[in-house]
Amino acid sequence: MSGRFITFEGGDGCGKSTQVKLLAEYLQSKGIMPVLTKEPGGTPEGQVLRQLLVTGDKDKFDAISECLLYYADRRNHLNKVVWPALKADKWVISDRYADSTEAYQYYGYDKRVDISVLNGLYKIVAGDFKPDLTIILDIEPEVGMRRSFAKAETMEVKELRFESRQMEFHQNLRRGFLEIAAREPERCVVINADADIETVHRQILRIVEERLGV
Amino acid sequence: MSGRFITFEGGDGCGKSTQVKLLAEYLQSKGIMPVLTKEPGGTPEGQVLRQLLVTGDKDKFDAISECLLYYADRRNHLNKVVWPALKADKWVISDRYADSTEAYQYYGYDKRVDISVLNGLYKIVAGDFKPDLTIILDIEPEVGMRRSFAKAETMEVKELRFESRQMEFHQNLRRGFLEIAAREPERCVVINADADIETVHRQILRIVEERLGV
Repeated sequence: MSGRFITFEGGDGCGKSTQVKLLAEYLQSKGIMPVLTKEPGGTPEGQVLRQLLVTGDKDKFDAISECLLYYADRRNHLNKVVWPALKADKWVISDRYADSTEAYQYYGYDKRVDISVLNGLYKIVAGDFKPDLTIILDIEPEVGMRRSFAKAETMEVKELRFESRQMEFHQNLRRGFLEIAAREPERCVVINADADIETVHRQILRIVEERLGV
Repeated sequence: MSGRFITFEGGDGCGKSTQVKLLAEYLQSKGIMPVLTKEPGGTPEGQVLRQLLVTGDKDKFDAISECLLYYADRRNHLNKVVWPALKADKWVISDRYADSTEAYQYYGYDKRVDISVLNGLYKIVAGDFKPDLTIILDIEPEVGMRRSFAKAETMEVKELRFESRQMEFHQNLRRGFLEIAAREPERCVVINADADIETVHRQILRIVEERLGV
């Protein structure tokens, strides 16, 4: 397979969707037509799960229910979008993947789900499959929250269920992403997302060139 | 706790919902006001999951995605409906519970999900908690299918995703329910649901009296 699986991760408001788009445009200019996708909600069924998960009252699900829903969405997304594209030698760029579940449902919730549960779910759903490259956009939670709420102003359906949590939650999940990156340096790269869009984009291009040889 | 958790199980069209109602009426006549509920869909969020799971194309989810969705619904249902009611000493009667997941996603699908995965999910979601009594309504799949399709004629949203599978699937899941009952005779009772409604109801009452002393 000459396809590649790149995932973008980070707290709310870190600029993932903007950077995914810019990277895709760059790859297209190099003759690579990537599949752009996201979690949750990378399939029609997943869109229904996304609405359930990212809107409404913050306490409508506990951490265990959420993990099961995110992993159900992930399994469906892998089966229907990611794996078929990689088999067809395409590049796939996903706005969030499994690191988000670990950061939000394990680190964010003050370790309310046992890490062995999350690792077990990953194995059931994806086996030994992993992204080739994970770009973690790191941002001060206060800055990310400001961006997220500003973006929500323009959206018909407010995807603010997680944003409505305390700042401590967002600090915990930032720490989670940084610990994941430190644990798997061969897969993950952390980029400071406080910088302007163009600076962040140039850093991402450098990483993609170094790691994946474009 | 003086509450009791009774679950009804069986293939599609076996008459569970009718028998749940009749048992509830009987218990009310004895001064017990049971909480009637169901899976999937015993909570507002669960209703969304139910629509995803029981309508539409039979291949829209694989067995692993389905198990995760059913268990997410189950966790939410236990947290919000079943456990609070039992804590308040109420009786709870649920139209389907975990045996259905084992019968459909393990036996029905010709063992496509490893049984250790299902047992692991149960443990994560419910720990050691089990129903006090499980009534399995056993019916010839051909008879059940006829009833199910007749009932769907009267429904606005056709819940026929599983009914659309081959007869072999329904025979497998019938065998599944019978094997579960044979494995756990202290919890499960099998009742022949080919008989008329009143006869089935009387058998259920006898079991409830014997096992739970009403």
